[in-house]
Amino acid sequence: MPETLTFDGDALHLLDQRALPVDVRYEVCRTPEETARAIKSLVVRGAPAIGVAAAYGVALAARRAMESGAAIDLALTDAHRILAASRPTAVNLFWALDQMRRVQRSLPGASSETLFDALAAEARKLQSDDVASCRSMGEFGASLFPAGARVLTHCNAGALATAGYGTALGVIRSAHRQGKIDRVFADETRPVLQGARLTAWELVNDQIPTTLITDSMAGFLMSRGEINCVVVGADRIVANGDVINKIGTYSLAVLAREHRIPFYVAAPRSTFDLATPTGKDVTIEERDPMEVLEFGGIRVAPVGVDVRNPAFDVTPFALVTAIICETGVAQAPIAEALIRLVALPFDPALDPAVR
Amino acid sequence: MPETLTFDGDALHLLDQRALPVDVRYEVCRTPEETARAIKSLVVRGAPAIGVAAAYGVALAARRAMESGAAIDLALTDAHRILAASRPTAVNLFWALDQMRRVQRSLPGASSETLFDALAAEARKLQSDDVASCRSMGEFGASLFPAGARVLTHCNAGALATAGYGTALGVIRSAHRQGKIDRVFADETRPVLQGARLTAWELVNDQIPTTLITDSMAGFLMSRGEINCVVVGADRIVANGDVINKIGTYSLAVLAREHRIPFYVAAPRSTFDLATPTGKDVTIEERDPMEVLEFGGIRVAPVGVDVRNPAFDVTPFALVTAIICETGVAQAPIAEALIRLVALPFDPALDPAVR
Repeated sequence: MPETLTFDGDALHLLDQRALPVDVRYEVCRTPEETARAIKSLVVRGAPAIGVAAAYGVALAARRAMESGAAIDLALTDAHRILAASRPTAVNLFWALDQMRRVQRSLPGASSETLFDALAAEARKLQSDDVASCRSMGEFGASLFPAGARVLTHCNAGALATAGYGTALGVIRSAHRQGKIDRVFADETRPVLQGARLTAWELVNDQIPTTLITDSMAGFLMSRGEINCVVVGADRIVANGDVINKIGTYSLAVLAREHRIPFYVAAPRSTFDLATPTGKDVTIEERDPMEVLEFGGIRVAPVGVDVRNPAFDVTPFALVTAIICETGVAQAPIAEALIRLVALPFDPALDPAVR
Repeated sequence: MPETLTFDGDALHLLDQRALPVDVRYEVCRTPEETARAIKSLVVRGAPAIGVAAAYGVALAARRAMESGAAIDLALTDAHRILAASRPTAVNLFWALDQMRRVQRSLPGASSETLFDALAAEARKLQSDDVASCRSMGEFGASLFPAGARVLTHCNAGALATAGYGTALGVIRSAHRQGKIDRVFADETRPVLQGARLTAWELVNDQIPTTLITDSMAGFLMSRGEINCVVVGADRIVANGDVINKIGTYSLAVLAREHRIPFYVAAPRSTFDLATPTGKDVTIEERDPMEVLEFGGIRVAPVGVDVRNPAFDVTPFALVTAIICETGVAQAPIAEALIRLVALPFDPALDPAVR
């Protein structure tokens, strides 16, 4: 599978996820501005992938300052401001920027060259740690799956949403390796169709049996006993365990409970926002109405109609069976469980693919 | 608003609902075969409209036999067979064909001319009765709505799905005339987008404030208190009150109950199928996978992915607040209530628009 993002020491190459599955092409970002624009316009999406891309965006600011002789402190401050404003909901973005700022502060008065080397190294570490986290999540999550899993997923929480392997799709990949997957149902995930375009593409590439459905079909298939577990990713998980994820996740969680189907959320700890008490406290991004009014440049709705386009929704933890992260599985009482998993050490070198 | 269907004595003119809202054009059907093809390919859709179109399809068989001198009995038998095979789920189709057969049997040995006149008159009556039914449903339904209704609807149960005025949209139109509508939320209704293309178009034409959303957003808006009632149409209502309607209806009913929001179903008695005990006994049409794989001729999903495309789902009556038909409102105990409403007389001349 093509890499979600690569850094060649001078530029960040982002697999353009808007063009998939029809075209496999890369967008080249040489500045933090270009990186922020790529995040905003969904060239790269998925909370962990956004975090890693933003980290490289900061490294690119140092790289450009190194070349132009611009003041490095100012360049990095600008980069943080621009990247932080790219998308409001996924907390991994802010977490990754924090990691970069920590590195910067550890080198007061350093030259642009020194800072670039340190920041690029940190971004690379965030990237490889993210893959290791996904593999660890995969192991923890797969152990929860039933044999003969007929698993529903929503949006894309795959290799494309991360530095590789995926969160929800990482769990599915690990379960598939263990022979536990009978079939995956992929919600198409309107309006941007990440499920149809990205998740189906990843799973077909991996030769995992996959059925594409529209978002409105999940409830019916559950009622007919065709789905026996659900796993999704997350854009933010707050202190009380509420999950902020792609619009439609909440409805699936309600439907899963109605049918007594386990509902799992897989997300690295960089997605945790334990400083925010509940899901109600999170800003939900409203995106461009044209995403709903048009499809592939074709107008589908009449002129004069209003549109709502919230990109995410809030799933109360009461509807979640378990949250899976790289250090384990969190269940009720969830606030304590999340704190415990954050405190546990995680050694990326203990990647289960290597062990 | 353009007419959904008109008969000029020689041909049936169907507003091509596949082209809306971009183009307003008519498909001309001169034979039962052309009519069946138009039903199958969604030129005309919506349970009551399908019924009326099929009735005209039978009249067209008599018309053509009258011109060609073909054997009228054989021509009508063929027409019934072809039209009955066009779509399996909406029961109004079979009900309308039964009405036509009743007329035919009342005129044994009649000439093609006599039969055509009688069948065309019957089809015209089914058409005008359907509009009167919708207006009556509108009155009954509107009385149930709260003031300041923020009502969600799914698919298109409007003038376009009927001979005019609409079932669910008829209730919304009547409630709007009574000043009760604050806003309508229209689910876009993938895969065929009847909500975006047809419902939004009808409501914008009527200057009713309308917000288009994707199917996955309804739950989130309910959780934020932005929706306070739901009304949908039906393709079939069986003896125990189970409602067969557009895929996605069941999920909305589960979500409505979760948020204690009333969930209404509006459908004429021609939609009732009291000979079928439960929703589980109804054949659910699976349509062409391309409806899910493509949009507007643009491929959205990778080659190699499987697809499910059930056109309808089953909502147990336990999730339905009330069923509204032209003779009143049915609530639990539902089996008895449906029988009572079927037995009540309905005089189309008492159209509430006329009273």
